[in-house]
Amino acid sequence: MRHNFGAGPCILPQEVFKQASQAVLDFKDGLSILEISHRTAEFEAVVEETVKLIKELMDVPSGYSVVLLQGGASLQFSMVPMNLLPEGGTAAYLETGVWANKAIKEVKVFGTANVVASSKEANFTYVPKDYVIPEDSAYFHCTSNNTIYGTELFSFPKTNVPVVCDMSSDIMSRVIDVSQFDLIYAGAQKNIGPAGLTIAIVKDEILGKSGRKLPSMLDYKVHIDGGSMYNTPPVFSIYVAMLNLRWLKAKGGVAEIEKENKAKAEALYKEIDRNPLFKGTCAVEDRSRMNICFVMENPELEKPFLKFAEENGVEGIKGHRSVGGFRASIYNALPITSVHALIELMQIFAEKHQ
Amino acid sequence: MRHNFGAGPCILPQEVFKQASQAVLDFKDGLSILEISHRTAEFEAVVEETVKLIKELMDVPSGYSVVLLQGGASLQFSMVPMNLLPEGGTAAYLETGVWANKAIKEVKVFGTANVVASSKEANFTYVPKDYVIPEDSAYFHCTSNNTIYGTELFSFPKTNVPVVCDMSSDIMSRVIDVSQFDLIYAGAQKNIGPAGLTIAIVKDEILGKSGRKLPSMLDYKVHIDGGSMYNTPPVFSIYVAMLNLRWLKAKGGVAEIEKENKAKAEALYKEIDRNPLFKGTCAVEDRSRMNICFVMENPELEKPFLKFAEENGVEGIKGHRSVGGFRASIYNALPITSVHALIELMQIFAEKHQ
Repeated sequence: MRHNFGAGPCILPQEVFKQASQAVLDFKDGLSILEISHRTAEFEAVVEETVKLIKELMDVPSGYSVVLLQGGASLQFSMVPMNLLPEGGTAAYLETGVWANKAIKEVKVFGTANVVASSKEANFTYVPKDYVIPEDSAYFHCTSNNTIYGTELFSFPKTNVPVVCDMSSDIMSRVIDVSQFDLIYAGAQKNIGPAGLTIAIVKDEILGKSGRKLPSMLDYKVHIDGGSMYNTPPVFSIYVAMLNLRWLKAKGGVAEIEKENKAKAEALYKEIDRNPLFKGTCAVEDRSRMNICFVMENPELEKPFLKFAEENGVEGIKGHRSVGGFRASIYNALPITSVHALIELMQIFAEKHQ
Repeated sequence: MRHNFGAGPCILPQEVFKQASQAVLDFKDGLSILEISHRTAEFEAVVEETVKLIKELMDVPSGYSVVLLQGGASLQFSMVPMNLLPEGGTAAYLETGVWANKAIKEVKVFGTANVVASSKEANFTYVPKDYVIPEDSAYFHCTSNNTIYGTELFSFPKTNVPVVCDMSSDIMSRVIDVSQFDLIYAGAQKNIGPAGLTIAIVKDEILGKSGRKLPSMLDYKVHIDGGSMYNTPPVFSIYVAMLNLRWLKAKGGVAEIEKENKAKAEALYKEIDRNPLFKGTCAVEDRSRMNICFVMENPELEKPFLKFAEENGVEGIKGHRSVGGFRASIYNALPITSVHALIELMQIFAEKHQ
């Protein structure tokens, strides 16, 4: 039995793998999902259902469009200012980790990033609060979950400025109120589907105001008008995302998975706090429910524990090099039994090394 | 038996479908190719092999880099001028179809497109020759194969200006001399692999000269330096491309497949020219070996023939709406037996309707 705690691309449900594998052999009348035209009625239905499921699962209000894109959050870092930041404008950014930092860097090609708050001085181990967003900002940008450092934003600022959020690593892991945001984007490869797909949820009224000439492929409006088919979309990644979103809906949707995610995170943090060999790395109130970062009191035991975990089927818990220690990513599809397996290994290891 | 003549995403070899299907269930130690991190040694090996196979199969000279990207040719339409066209500069474009036309449109965001020749007045049924590329052009851009109209460029201009070529629909279908080009790009979804992957072959020395501030994701240099892993790549599309390129190599490489492609195209054009019910739509010397466009002498027979073909397992031969009639796309993976099946149906139909 393998337990895949990888940070992404990450585990998806086993039944999704089975259905996807079958569709590679036979999607329709003996044709593979890899060889069908994106202009077939069958694939148009896949795009339609995927968009519908995103709207339904996230309870997207009217006035918002959902688009399927490519290029990951990394391309969104540039698309956001291209679409929303007028020439000479300033956008407000919350710096909570490496990804926020990369987003900030990309703004500088198009205008000014005003970093309203940062936890960089503490290696991003907490989420800054009580910052001020200047009213004349073109928009405010934040990262809802910080994969590398293991923090998560559990509240978002109330402001008159459009709020843009990179939800790549916690989208659909918990109920959020989409109407609090003007633009949400996410690389698919955590809770939505495999790598190669990006989604954006855009409040229509914020578009068309930057005054910039935009390349068609980097203009949200072009993709909205084209029904996510302006150009050849990433067919297979969309298909698998649809399967995965169907699975989420059948499980009871985002509210249900949120309960499971809370239970998984609570169980693991409880063990980290209880077990004398381990300790968490983040401010308790900002602890992510998706990426659980922890180290050992005695750093010399980290290599042996990693080896012990891997020998017992636990995959992908090595921490990012900028934090060290361990990171257990417990996305939607990771079963609680995998969390229990890791906890048991922590306990067995502690008994041996106390 | 199905015969998939779709224009793309298109047929890939059956053994590639089988291997890809298996990897969705178990790529490595029971883990799916869809759930492994792109930073694993196993996937890094996939990227490395894919790049190596492209270099080997196309005999890419030293001084060129091969990068794996996202966004299709449509995003390349903008990346090319962003990377190669200085502010206020002019680039020369050959207009041979809708895709060339889209490329021309995107340049206008960044500078001036000088259309050196066009066959638009003849609905792109031939490839213009004997045009002049001004020496002060930042680059010359052409489309080697015109999917919609069924024409192909069998020679490329000799010029001191950097030559950029969109080879989306005929890359690796025939031997080309890469050293004649400075930048080649292609959406993968014809001869390389499934949709969601784009490749670029870039002469290193042409980069870094446009003087523009570039978003990281739109800078070839960033992707080259990142070994096609600057951000999360489209893992599955790359994996399937690798399988498909292995298949091509095992078949004997591009020179071998070119022979097959010639044989397939010759057989089908011969029938089109011979059969009194059908006629080709393009100038004979410019006829594509990838997309064979034809109509019927009596347009009223087109619907019945399409129906007859579909009833007999022939998929995807409806022509693009801007040309009408039929388009049989006969990419690398389409077996000659499928071409023979189509020819037989044309002959049976002709016997019934003469």
